[in-house]
Amino acid sequence: MENKKVKRSEDYSLWYNNLVKNADLAEHSAVKGCMVIKPYGYAIWEKMQQELDKRFKETGHSNAYFPLFIPKSFFSKEASHVEGFAKECAVVTHYRLKLDEETKEIVVDPDAKLEEELIVRPTSETIIWNTYKGWIRSYRDLPILLNQWANVVRWEMRTRLFLRTAEFLWQEGHTAHATAAEAIKETQQMLDVYADFAENILAVPVIKGVKTANERFAGALDTYCIEGLMQDGKALQMGTSHFLGQNFAKAFDVKFQSKEGKNEYVWATSWGVSTRLMGALIMAHSDDEGLVLPPSLAPIQVVIVPIFKNSEQLEKISEVVNDLQTKLRKKGISVKFDDRDTQSPGWKFAEYELKGVPVRLAIGPRDLENGTVEVARRDTKEKEVLSLIDIETKIPHLLEAIQNNIYQKALDFRDQNIHTANTWDEFMDLIENRGGFVAAHWDGTTETEIKIKELSKATIRCIPLNNKLEEGTCILTGKASSQRVLFAKAY
Amino acid sequence: MENKKVKRSEDYSLWYNNLVKNADLAEHSAVKGCMVIKPYGYAIWEKMQQELDKRFKETGHSNAYFPLFIPKSFFSKEASHVEGFAKECAVVTHYRLKLDEETKEIVVDPDAKLEEELIVRPTSETIIWNTYKGWIRSYRDLPILLNQWANVVRWEMRTRLFLRTAEFLWQEGHTAHATAAEAIKETQQMLDVYADFAENILAVPVIKGVKTANERFAGALDTYCIEGLMQDGKALQMGTSHFLGQNFAKAFDVKFQSKEGKNEYVWATSWGVSTRLMGALIMAHSDDEGLVLPPSLAPIQVVIVPIFKNSEQLEKISEVVNDLQTKLRKKGISVKFDDRDTQSPGWKFAEYELKGVPVRLAIGPRDLENGTVEVARRDTKEKEVLSLIDIETKIPHLLEAIQNNIYQKALDFRDQNIHTANTWDEFMDLIENRGGFVAAHWDGTTETEIKIKELSKATIRCIPLNNKLEEGTCILTGKASSQRVLFAKAY
Repeated sequence: MENKKVKRSEDYSLWYNNLVKNADLAEHSAVKGCMVIKPYGYAIWEKMQQELDKRFKETGHSNAYFPLFIPKSFFSKEASHVEGFAKECAVVTHYRLKLDEETKEIVVDPDAKLEEELIVRPTSETIIWNTYKGWIRSYRDLPILLNQWANVVRWEMRTRLFLRTAEFLWQEGHTAHATAAEAIKETQQMLDVYADFAENILAVPVIKGVKTANERFAGALDTYCIEGLMQDGKALQMGTSHFLGQNFAKAFDVKFQSKEGKNEYVWATSWGVSTRLMGALIMAHSDDEGLVLPPSLAPIQVVIVPIFKNSEQLEKISEVVNDLQTKLRKKGISVKFDDRDTQSPGWKFAEYELKGVPVRLAIGPRDLENGTVEVARRDTKEKEVLSLIDIETKIPHLLEAIQNNIYQKALDFRDQNIHTANTWDEFMDLIENRGGFVAAHWDGTTETEIKIKELSKATIRCIPLNNKLEEGTCILTGKASSQRVLFAKAY
Repeated sequence: MENKKVKRSEDYSLWYNNLVKNADLAEHSAVKGCMVIKPYGYAIWEKMQQELDKRFKETGHSNAYFPLFIPKSFFSKEASHVEGFAKECAVVTHYRLKLDEETKEIVVDPDAKLEEELIVRPTSETIIWNTYKGWIRSYRDLPILLNQWANVVRWEMRTRLFLRTAEFLWQEGHTAHATAAEAIKETQQMLDVYADFAENILAVPVIKGVKTANERFAGALDTYCIEGLMQDGKALQMGTSHFLGQNFAKAFDVKFQSKEGKNEYVWATSWGVSTRLMGALIMAHSDDEGLVLPPSLAPIQVVIVPIFKNSEQLEKISEVVNDLQTKLRKKGISVKFDDRDTQSPGWKFAEYELKGVPVRLAIGPRDLENGTVEVARRDTKEKEVLSLIDIETKIPHLLEAIQNNIYQKALDFRDQNIHTANTWDEFMDLIENRGGFVAAHWDGTTETEIKIKELSKATIRCIPLNNKLEEGTCILTGKASSQRVLFAKAY
C-alpha cells in the first residue's frame, strides 16, 4: 500500500507527493483536483486553525459565515476581480436531478435550470460586500472585523496535494473601515499576525513584502505577503493581506455617514491563509525518513515505545509509563503509548519517524532496572539515555529546544539562499543552478517583469518591507532602479 | 432597522423570524435559500461545535475532510439513497465563465462542460464510502471512526433561518465496523452523545427513539433520533444517528478480511447535527423580550452596565468593575463591560435582554457607597442587590442555577405536553387544539402512517427507546398494536 520512499535529492517533487500519502496526511479523491484530508493531516490543520483563530480574536475579529454560492452577476461588478476569479470556477446551473424513465439513469432535470447561474465561491469579497451594504449606515457601524473559515473552489487543471487543489480550506478575513489609514493599518497588522504564526508555530521564517502590480490580488490596491523558502530552493507564498481601497464599496455601493456628516465609500481589507500552509510545513522541514513536525503543531508530541519480550515485561513497563503519561499530560503535552504486540519496536520507530513525532521514548526491562529511558529527537536524530525521574521536567524544555532548532535550521537555510545578482547572466545562473531568492534590480514595469518570467520562470516574490534603497540598473533592461526586489521560482 | 417585536402568543412564526434578525443571529442572503450567520449567531454555533467536538474526540473519533463535490454516478449506487437525496440538489455542470465579446457580459463557457456533472454534497456517505474502499483491507483497519465539519446543500423551496436552509453547516460522523453489533453500539453511543449535549448544554430535554421505516434516512436500516419540543407545541428533530448496515459497503464494494480469513462487507453508521440546533435553542427558551441563552452557550455570560451621570462617576465605577472583570475571567466566565456613553442604561438593559445574556450587573454611584451591585437574571427576570465582595463567588453558582432552571422549565413544559389519545377523535382534538406529543397506538404500517399525516399534519416523531409494551388498537384503523408511538406536528 505504501508509496516508494524517494530521497529529496533524487526527485523532490515525488518525495513530497509520496510523503503526503505515506504519512497519512492526504490523498487524491475520486473528484478531479479535490483532495481527501486524512485524520492525521486534519489534526495538524486543526492545530493551525486554533492558533490562527486565537490570534484573530486577540486582534478583535469575530467569525461569521456567508453563502457558498455567489450569483454570477456579482462578479461583473468589480472589473478586475472578475478577470482574476470568475474564469476557472465551478458553475451551478441546475437544482434538480431526475430519473430518466427510458434509460433508467439519473439525469439533470432540464426543467430545473436556474435563472441566474451560481458560482461556488473562489473567494468571498463580492457576497460579503453585498451583505455589508445592509449593515453599514454610519461611522458608528465601523469598523467591521470579520473572519470566515470556509471551503473555496478554484478550478485548477494541474493540482498538487495541499499546494494547489480545486477545493481547499482556508480562512478569509474581510474588514470594513472609515478611513484608508485604518484599513492600511489593519492590512499590515494581519500580515504581522501571519508572520508571527509562520515563524513561531510553523517554524518557517518568512519575508514580509508587497507584491508588484502584476502579482496583486484581483481588486486590491496593495497586496502584502509572506514568502517562505522550501528545501528545493523554491519560494512559497504562505499568506496574503490585501488593502482593497474603496473598490468593493464602490462596486456594491457601500457608503457611510462620517462623523462630519458626509457620505463616503467604506475602505476594505481582506486576508487569507489556506491548507497550502500544510505544504509549506511539510516542504520546509521534512527529511528523507519522513515528516519533521514542530512540536507546536504535532498531534502527538511524545510517543512511548515499550521494548518487551513477554506480557510480564510489558505489564511492568506499562506501570511506569502510565504514571509518566499522566504527568506529561498534566503539563499539556500530547503523549501516545504504543503498546501493540502486533508490531516490532523497529517498525514503530520507523512509523513515528515517518509521522514526524518530535520525541520518542523507548523503555525496556533494563531501563526499568536502571531507572532510565532512551530519548530520541526526531529533528536531529540524537539519542540519549536519561534518568526516568528527570524526564517529566526535561520533556517540556526538549520540546521547546526542538521547536527552536527546527526554526533555526530553516532560517539558516533561508539566509544562505538569498543571493544577489547584478547582471542578467548572474541572475540566470543563480535561478537555474542555485535556486533560492535572488535580490536584483528591476525597472519597475510589468512588461519587464513578465519578460523575466518568460525567460527564467522566476517571478518577483515581493518587494520586502523596509527595503533598503539602492541605486542600480535593471538586470534585463538596464534601466534605472532604486531598490532590489526578490525573485524566485515559486510553487 | 429593527424588525417589529412580536409576542409569541400573537404569531409564533413571525416572533421567531424577527428574533433571529433582531438579536443579530442570522439573516437571509442574496442567494435564495442561503443564510448569512452573523457574528453573534456564529459565536453560539462555535460554542456548540466545541462542546460536540470534545465529546466526539472523547469517544475516540477524529476529524477529516472529504470533497464538497460528488460525481453524479455515485448517487445511483445506493438505490434508496438517490431517492432521498439526489433530487433537490445543486448541480455543477461547467467549470469556466467567459466574457461574451458581443454583449460584454460574463457568460458560462459552453466549451467548459463537465463530462460528468458534480453534485454539491447533500450528505457524504457516497464519497466517503468510495474513499473507505481504498483504506480497508483487513479487520485490522477497523473500526474507522471519523467525523467531518462541513457545509452541505439541499435545495429547499421553503426555507426558514436555521431551521431549513439550502446551505447549512453541520457535522457528519461516518464509521466503519467489522460487525453489525459493533456498528449498532456506535449508533446508540452517538445518540447518547447527542442527548447528553442537548440536555446539558442546550438545556433542551429530548426523547430518544427510533424512526419508523417511512421516516428513516435514505439508505439506513435504522434511524435513531432525539426529538425536542418547542414552545408552540411543535416537535423538532434535533439529531439523528443511523445504522446503515452493509448498504454502502455493498454499493461501493468495501470488503474486509475477517480474523477468520473470510471476506465480508463492512458495517456502517452515520450521524449528524446541524445549525438547525440554533433554531431549537432559540425556540425552546426565548421569550417576548428576546433570547434566553443557557450560560453554557452564551457568548457573553455576564454583562456589566455602569449607571453614571458624568465621566468622574464612570471612572470610579470602572475601577471597581475592572477588578471584578479580572476576577470573573480568571474563573473562565466571559464578561462584557459596556461603558459606552452613547447609549442609556435602559437601552443597554433592553439590548442585553434581547441578546439573552444570562446575568446583568448594574453598578451606580450609590452602589459604590454601599458596596453593592444589582444582579438581574435573564431567565426569571429577578433582580436582587448583593454585596459586591460576594459577587465573585456567587456568579458561578448563579450561572449554574440559571442553566439548571432553563432546563427544568423546558422539561416541565415538555412533560406537561405529552398527552395520550385512545381514539381518533381524541387524537385529532389533541393535535389540533393542544399540540405537543401525542402517545397513541398505530398499526405499524407505512400506509396508515401516511394517512394519519394527511389527515392531521402530524407525523410519528419516534418510537421511544425502552418503550413500554402495551396492547391496544390503532387510532385510525383499529388494528392491533403492541405499543404507543409519539406523534406531533413538527418543524
